[in-house]
Amino acid sequence: MASGSYPDSSMKHVLALVLIACSATRVHVQQPPPESPEVLPDRRVVFRLLAPEAAQVQLALEGASPVSLTKNAEGIWSVTTAALEPDFYAYSFLIDGVATLDPANSATRVRVARTESVLHVPGSTSLPWEIKPVPRGTLHHHFYRSGIVGGERDFYVYTPPGYADGVERRYPVLYLQHGYGGDASGWLAAPANVILDNLIAEGKAEPMLLVMSNGYGVIDFFQRGRPDLVLSRAQQNSDRFRQALLAEVIPHVERNYRVAPGRESRALAGVSMGGSQALYVGLNAPYPFAWVVSLSTGGASPTFNHETDFPALDARANTQLRLLWIACGTDDPVIGANRAFREWLSSRGVRFTAVETAGAHTWMVWRRNLTAFVPLLFRPSAN
Amino acid sequence: MASGSYPDSSMKHVLALVLIACSATRVHVQQPPPESPEVLPDRRVVFRLLAPEAAQVQLALEGASPVSLTKNAEGIWSVTTAALEPDFYAYSFLIDGVATLDPANSATRVRVARTESVLHVPGSTSLPWEIKPVPRGTLHHHFYRSGIVGGERDFYVYTPPGYADGVERRYPVLYLQHGYGGDASGWLAAPANVILDNLIAEGKAEPMLLVMSNGYGVIDFFQRGRPDLVLSRAQQNSDRFRQALLAEVIPHVERNYRVAPGRESRALAGVSMGGSQALYVGLNAPYPFAWVVSLSTGGASPTFNHETDFPALDARANTQLRLLWIACGTDDPVIGANRAFREWLSSRGVRFTAVETAGAHTWMVWRRNLTAFVPLLFRPSAN
Repeated sequence: MASGSYPDSSMKHVLALVLIACSATRVHVQQPPPESPEVLPDRRVVFRLLAPEAAQVQLALEGASPVSLTKNAEGIWSVTTAALEPDFYAYSFLIDGVATLDPANSATRVRVARTESVLHVPGSTSLPWEIKPVPRGTLHHHFYRSGIVGGERDFYVYTPPGYADGVERRYPVLYLQHGYGGDASGWLAAPANVILDNLIAEGKAEPMLLVMSNGYGVIDFFQRGRPDLVLSRAQQNSDRFRQALLAEVIPHVERNYRVAPGRESRALAGVSMGGSQALYVGLNAPYPFAWVVSLSTGGASPTFNHETDFPALDARANTQLRLLWIACGTDDPVIGANRAFREWLSSRGVRFTAVETAGAHTWMVWRRNLTAFVPLLFRPSAN
Repeated sequence: MASGSYPDSSMKHVLALVLIACSATRVHVQQPPPESPEVLPDRRVVFRLLAPEAAQVQLALEGASPVSLTKNAEGIWSVTTAALEPDFYAYSFLIDGVATLDPANSATRVRVARTESVLHVPGSTSLPWEIKPVPRGTLHHHFYRSGIVGGERDFYVYTPPGYADGVERRYPVLYLQHGYGGDASGWLAAPANVILDNLIAEGKAEPMLLVMSNGYGVIDFFQRGRPDLVLSRAQQNSDRFRQALLAEVIPHVERNYRVAPGRESRALAGVSMGGSQALYVGLNAPYPFAWVVSLSTGGASPTFNHETDFPALDARANTQLRLLWIACGTDDPVIGANRAFREWLSSRGVRFTAVETAGAHTWMVWRRNLTAFVPLLFRPSAN
């Protein structure tokens, strides 16, 4: 026999191994979960959940209202959607009112500090945010203690393909900020690094670094169910974020990476809260960034007091900015405020590129925005 | 008024912003969830879940059997544990039999390809896996297409504090592998980088690189509920993992990082499936690693056919290995196989360090293992 001191126990060992593989999960499921989600050839999607004891199950799919599932005799709940656009979609099941992951699907993503399952609907051609057989960049995750914020902070740096091989080449940098409820990893949900890989491989974007830092200048600014904190501490949050970005993150990046010098090689973009911060930092002196992008926001502060947020903003800004790109989904709750902010900018003589796309306050809009504006950066023609 | 074109609508904008912050979650919760988990001063822990419609709610806490919660008049389910040892614990709620995250807790961790919530019980003194105010290393996430495996692969490289400042210093490397159901990020649950930061800061461990690569030589080797695949494809999985590690990952690391040369500066460790792989790669010619660590396994292949897995292993291995460190929890289902494997090693004249600790097949055991063996690596005395 082959197994040493336990000559007849091979099968026992096999069972032990299988038990180990399943041990963390065996209390959760008595049988393999039914396939879910299943993408049909016509891009309709079947969601299934084994929950014989549940009284009600709903599907909450990104970009759609919740729909109910129906239960069959085996206790499997299911629903089939209409055909979906090729994309990634976050979703949860609501079991008797409580949001849960899909037990059959290990792909997850964080949305407003809540982890959800992810559905991938492939298309007939590949999408800019799908992994392709192209050279891939590298993500570097940095940790440091911030004296400005008063706690542990982190940021990611994406270096493009070929960065490690070059010894002389210096790169421009896009600083890219997450929204409220997110963290420094937020844009990896796009996924921003894959979009950069693909744009660079196709020659559609300049090879660049991407820096994604933590957007909370106040360390516990995000607390679920406490919108009062947003109002009372927003100014401090924005000011300390700006300080940490300019005095801690950027110097660290410029010291440790081969970065092209000067504000012409520096872009700042952000979404939602991060879009407000991009405006606040980008449209005030000393204009540290020549390229500014704001997605899905209506101004800089929660109350959108533009005169207070941008006290000296006027047409002189046009000489400082190579690009001011302002985008919003037409179904976004903030679209009205976004349009009002643009009107206000125009009244001040500030030039910008306005982009409205179909969609709400979701990654479906933002990954398309990223794919659209990155090719404009660090290139001759812009606004 | 301050808000540009919408002079009287500040409050509307405030509401819009709050709505945005909550938009992804408002369908899930009608009110802020009750505090959960709450760690009491005596380290008992209260878990709470708002689920008025659920018929049954249980808590599945890492290292314990599921326990039932009871519902109060407001529909809040709760349970209070006995006092817990300071540590991190993964857990799920089982709502009518379906595993869910704790909606009140945004901390999550992946356990056997399933995302769970994480409880942190702090102690009176800090633990080696808690973040301390010490210099922090950096994590680098690499992506590449593997010709050996035939698909997209990734690996992480931890560089210790000071790595970026040095220009001459070369570092030894610990290759650290995850278990079945995990991925290259698996050891970040320990969290391995924080443990290294702390050990290095206290002078307890040599500054080293840590490389965590994907352990699936067969790209879809892990499929939930398909243990038959483990048996039929284990050999191919191990062989291709070895090939990818030796021919793709290590050369990339040694080309792109300042790595000390030679097998004396190279360690291989792993847990569960990764522990089996550490044995398979480490205890066969050409002995690419002078330091080998195996956690919570009973041998190399699922059937533990030691003679087949290590056809030439005998006392000559002692001259190749600076350390062979074999550990297992005494409540681990694999403890019997682990002891049998050690007996078999002894019968072959192979020297090793045996470690048995309290605990099962969990991260509570493995993060303590990592903290114990890393200080032994790349230092004069070992076995």
